[in-house]
Amino acid sequence: MLNTLIVGASGYAGAELTAYVNRHPQMNLTALGVSAQSNDAGKLLSDLHPQYKGVLDIPLQPLNDISELAKTVDLVFLATAHEVSHDMAPVFLDAGCVVCDLSGAFRVNQAEFYTRYYGFEHQHQDWLDRAVYGLAEWQHEAIKQAQLVAVPGCYPTAAQLALKPLVDGGLLNLDQWPVINAVSGVSGAGRKASLGNSFCEVSFQPYGIFNHRHQPEISAHLGVPVIFTPHLGNFARGIVETITCRLQPGVSAADIASTYQQAYHDKPLVRLYDKGVPALKAVVGLPYCDIGFSVQDEHLIVVAAEDNLLKGAAAQAVQCANIRFGFEPTQALI
Amino acid sequence: MLNTLIVGASGYAGAELTAYVNRHPQMNLTALGVSAQSNDAGKLLSDLHPQYKGVLDIPLQPLNDISELAKTVDLVFLATAHEVSHDMAPVFLDAGCVVCDLSGAFRVNQAEFYTRYYGFEHQHQDWLDRAVYGLAEWQHEAIKQAQLVAVPGCYPTAAQLALKPLVDGGLLNLDQWPVINAVSGVSGAGRKASLGNSFCEVSFQPYGIFNHRHQPEISAHLGVPVIFTPHLGNFARGIVETITCRLQPGVSAADIASTYQQAYHDKPLVRLYDKGVPALKAVVGLPYCDIGFSVQDEHLIVVAAEDNLLKGAAAQAVQCANIRFGFEPTQALI
Amino acid sequence: MLNTLIVGASGYAGAELTAYVNRHPQMNLTALGVSAQSNDAGKLLSDLHPQYKGVLDIPLQPLNDISELAKTVDLVFLATAHEVSHDMAPVFLDAGCVVCDLSGAFRVNQAEFYTRYYGFEHQHQDWLDRAVYGLAEWQHEAIKQAQLVAVPGCYPTAAQLALKPLVDGGLLNLDQWPVINAVSGVSGAGRKASLGNSFCEVSFQPYGIFNHRHQPEISAHLGVPVIFTPHLGNFARGIVETITCRLQPGVSAADIASTYQQAYHDKPLVRLYDKGVPALKAVVGLPYCDIGFSVQDEHLIVVAAEDNLLKGAAAQAVQCANIRFGFEPTQALI
Amino acid sequence: MLNTLIVGASGYAGAELTAYVNRHPQMNLTALGVSAQSNDAGKLLSDLHPQYKGVLDIPLQPLNDISELAKTVDLVFLATAHEVSHDMAPVFLDAGCVVCDLSGAFRVNQAEFYTRYYGFEHQHQDWLDRAVYGLAEWQHEAIKQAQLVAVPGCYPTAAQLALKPLVDGGLLNLDQWPVINAVSGVSGAGRKASLGNSFCEVSFQPYGIFNHRHQPEISAHLGVPVIFTPHLGNFARGIVETITCRLQPGVSAADIASTYQQAYHDKPLVRLYDKGVPALKAVVGLPYCDIGFSVQDEHLIVVAAEDNLLKGAAAQAVQCANIRFGFEPTQALI
Repeated sequence: MLNTLIVGASGYAGAELTAYVNRHPQMNLTALGVSAQSNDAGKLLSDLHPQYKGVLDIPLQPLNDISELAKTVDLVFLATAHEVSHDMAPVFLDAGCVVCDLSGAFRVNQAEFYTRYYGFEHQHQDWLDRAVYGLAEWQHEAIKQAQLVAVPGCYPTAAQLALKPLVDGGLLNLDQWPVINAVSGVSGAGRKASLGNSFCEVSFQPYGIFNHRHQPEISAHLGVPVIFTPHLGNFARGIVETITCRLQPGVSAADIASTYQQAYHDKPLVRLYDKGVPALKAVVGLPYCDIGFSVQDEHLIVVAAEDNLLKGAAAQAVQCANIRFGFEPTQALI
Repeated sequence: MLNTLIVGASGYAGAELTAYVNRHPQMNLTALGVSAQSNDAGKLLSDLHPQYKGVLDIPLQPLNDISELAKTVDLVFLATAHEVSHDMAPVFLDAGCVVCDLSGAFRVNQAEFYTRYYGFEHQHQDWLDRAVYGLAEWQHEAIKQAQLVAVPGCYPTAAQLALKPLVDGGLLNLDQWPVINAVSGVSGAGRKASLGNSFCEVSFQPYGIFNHRHQPEISAHLGVPVIFTPHLGNFARGIVETITCRLQPGVSAADIASTYQQAYHDKPLVRLYDKGVPALKAVVGLPYCDIGFSVQDEHLIVVAAEDNLLKGAAAQAVQCANIRFGFEPTQALI
Repeated sequence: MLNTLIVGASGYAGAELTAYVNRHPQMNLTALGVSAQSNDAGKLLSDLHPQYKGVLDIPLQPLNDISELAKTVDLVFLATAHEVSHDMAPVFLDAGCVVCDLSGAFRVNQAEFYTRYYGFEHQHQDWLDRAVYGLAEWQHEAIKQAQLVAVPGCYPTAAQLALKPLVDGGLLNLDQWPVINAVSGVSGAGRKASLGNSFCEVSFQPYGIFNHRHQPEISAHLGVPVIFTPHLGNFARGIVETITCRLQPGVSAADIASTYQQAYHDKPLVRLYDKGVPALKAVVGLPYCDIGFSVQDEHLIVVAAEDNLLKGAAAQAVQCANIRFGFEPTQALI
Repeated sequence: MLNTLIVGASGYAGAELTAYVNRHPQMNLTALGVSAQSNDAGKLLSDLHPQYKGVLDIPLQPLNDISELAKTVDLVFLATAHEVSHDMAPVFLDAGCVVCDLSGAFRVNQAEFYTRYYGFEHQHQDWLDRAVYGLAEWQHEAIKQAQLVAVPGCYPTAAQLALKPLVDGGLLNLDQWPVINAVSGVSGAGRKASLGNSFCEVSFQPYGIFNHRHQPEISAHLGVPVIFTPHLGNFARGIVETITCRLQPGVSAADIASTYQQAYHDKPLVRLYDKGVPALKAVVGLPYCDIGFSVQDEHLIVVAAEDNLLKGAAAQAVQCANIRFGFEPTQALI
């Protein structure tokens, strides 16, 4: 049994993590931590998320001395702000814990990336060097050895699962950059008071055009340029990405299908569509990434869908932890 | 032409007021005011409410010296917090302006009401004495003479329009208190950052059971006790109230119908249903209060619907101003 | 292992039933049946409900000769129209199957009830006499002996769980009929093409005032008159009922609390609130009925919430089957 | 005063048309027609669309002998199915009426287009030759002379308003086809019972990939190939299109801005954004098409938004009629 700590359980992804860990046969939920300043400290998780009443009536502990806490746990999930993860992760790592970080703090291995895209100076190049990017279907072997897993962002997970087999297989004509139009539920913005996320203000719209920080995350890991345009959807959960690409001459729909089959036939959390493309409702509340596509001449459109809080966050984090400790990758997830 | 000031135009009701005043042939929009501390000061109304781009590109002015401003305007709409209206209204009134206040600050004529239900000490018993409650269909003569009109709350408007003819006509058996179940759109909570109003948190539910301040407002003006239970609906705009009453013996559906006809046949902003009851969609974006009912034996269910921002706020305020200045009551509204 | 048949799996409740049975350790899913005329015959359940892709890729079989099929199964869930259940249930019962019927066909033991409220002549008074009403928390002993369980309607489940302890305990002053205002998600109307349920037409509104068939179901089983007013909510799933009652003199909030505690302290699918009342989001996707209340003088407001497809249909059906066969009542549900 | 007939007033666009015509100072609403087989025949428009109660209580007439009717009207709006418009329009045209057709029946001037994309053989090449495509901002002179105006589709209106100035100005590198990702509200599918449009089934998703009939409409009128991918949004009204293009070397953001300015500075129904891009809420209920854009190196993203029922249908139809008869283009619209 792994003594497991979740920091940031009060948020939407943190609550989902708690539910997974709570039903995991090899994980023991040691504590749920929140910032010492949080208004939620002392409340029960079920006070914040009433669906868990009677199920997860677990107090949210203010984290004061994490170095003491670090000695008592084996596995830490950080569902925290980037800067908080940046500061906390090394404390847990130095104490020997395995850390799965759901923030962006360790996703790209160059410190200057954080200066540019996240607005803070990264102080832990050593841990950036050792962090493993937790795109679980592709990093199995590295994750098995990792002490620090940087769980990918919600948008990058779907985008990379859709594009990586095609890029690696050389099927795309990259003279034309893949155009990723992605739509996310409002929960992607986190659980907090904000005028922009208020019920009466939310309205379908693009945002962060040409400057969302997930664009360089995708490009850095895929190794190719992309145009990434996120949109705020008027729904709570889920992501649908419509990706338009140019194929190399002679590449057929059958080639695409067999490439995806080869990549994912033994990956139970990626569901491939023989025909049609996924709708949002196919994935909400579920740990899958669904992928379908259509080809016309040299044009390819791939549609990938996932729950941003699950395969885009909590489920992939648990999947990484499962891989790291030699459990079934889908343990507690399906 | 009336020189007209709107204070609190940045909110949802304030923006609707602005649109009405802007198209009113006898009103001249002098200024849109916001609190001097507001982040919105200096922005255009259309920056906040993009539907008005190109139409209401009007700057929001920080209000510093309102006594100077008061000298330049004839008519003031206050779409402000209760305490702000309480402080501001007398300044405008003393300068001779007509004030239509959309807050609760002058709706009930006893100062102790505010101590108990609004949590502040009311300092202006003189203006409480002179304020006219702006339930427009019922206070026509008083409004014509008023300098200060206290526009009713959104819930009380629909409840009173539905119940007042029945109460006044003695049709109800009040041994059984009318049970008002009301559902409001989220805009009723105002335009502000708040976790409770965030897109992912909003979920149909009752709130303020037995202690919402609109209950005493309704009872005070109707002169009878009621049980009022508000609910947060998962929609942006509109109110539907389902009101269950006991009838006096012998009162028939025909009696109810003729009572409503008598009350409202010449009131264009109340629409009576011959059969069926209103749905939310009948009133959203419109200045009407729709009323339908059904009778079985001694039981009566009345359903009243309105747009909380219009007949429940901005439209009724303009209707009161129209009455006050001798215009058509529906001028600029339909 | 119980060989289990689900008829009507294509609908929303039927699909939920399939997911429960599929993970039930003592049930073996023999077949999913649909009407022989159904367009869905031959499709996979996951073609209709894409969330089950890769999980419940089970074909929907057209049911031709159910008497043959009846010999091969132990347990039948009928998630079918009232008339279909009325015709099919006796065939399965005569073959010795246990039947859990989710329709209204056997919920009230007088045949004339069906003539009046359902518009058909009931032909099976013998089975009406033997049917057990499956309000699971209250009929445990009878369900253990039943061959035919009539699973209660979605609205009546929440209403009765809220009111039955109070009625049985004599806490209510019934001179004033309890006023039940209930709001249901659109899935309550079933999975079918219908203008009224189309996305652009759905709008919060009351319907079926004074004539919804769930009113007599509630009154028949509670033994007291009630006023029941259903509303269509603009959400897909869940029910919230706000119930306003008059208390007997001297009954306190503490009396209510202890009455509920006594009734439900050992019933895991009813969650009682110490303070506050449930919101819709507390129960969507979950098998619980949540109950909270507030008292002021002689007035009581109880709020009960459930997922109409789960505790209001599929979960309660499985709960009844669990009780009938001696399994844990919550097996496969939580 | 133009005697005006609206056929298909029962639908969403037809009802909007009726509201516009009703308030148009130079149009007299002669009749609202529906198919002789329609269930709606004999009902009032306000029975179907309750927001118009007391405002548009106008009966829907079954159309039997349209050749007689044609003699009594000057202007006909056809908000009908493609095949119905194809059959009806020539009857009205031969009688001398001006016809504004909102269907696709006369939008592209080659008869074979209809065989291929609409599945019927077009019988009226003569009227195809004479039809004017009603993209109002661009066809002003032709519309003034037209007897038959083919009002563009909802998706093509926004796409062409966004792209036409850039294409005509030679600013785009068309080696890379513009990628149009469009999201429409459910009302785009019309007012009818359909499982796919039912409340519980609607879920954000792409559809019609590579084979939506609006793709060739856009390409035919722009004169350039495009990749057009429509999506069903989970909202009732509005369209947002995110269009990704490659610029010719050296084209700057300032060039784009000035090109749009030149095209639309005197076109009041196109609103240009100096900064940022439109959200859905900016246009719902309004007759505008809003356009914003962002440039990075040689990449351009344009966002265009409109109400699919207004600038994408009814408002543009009235705008065309206004132009045809020499009224202000925005008469009755703003």
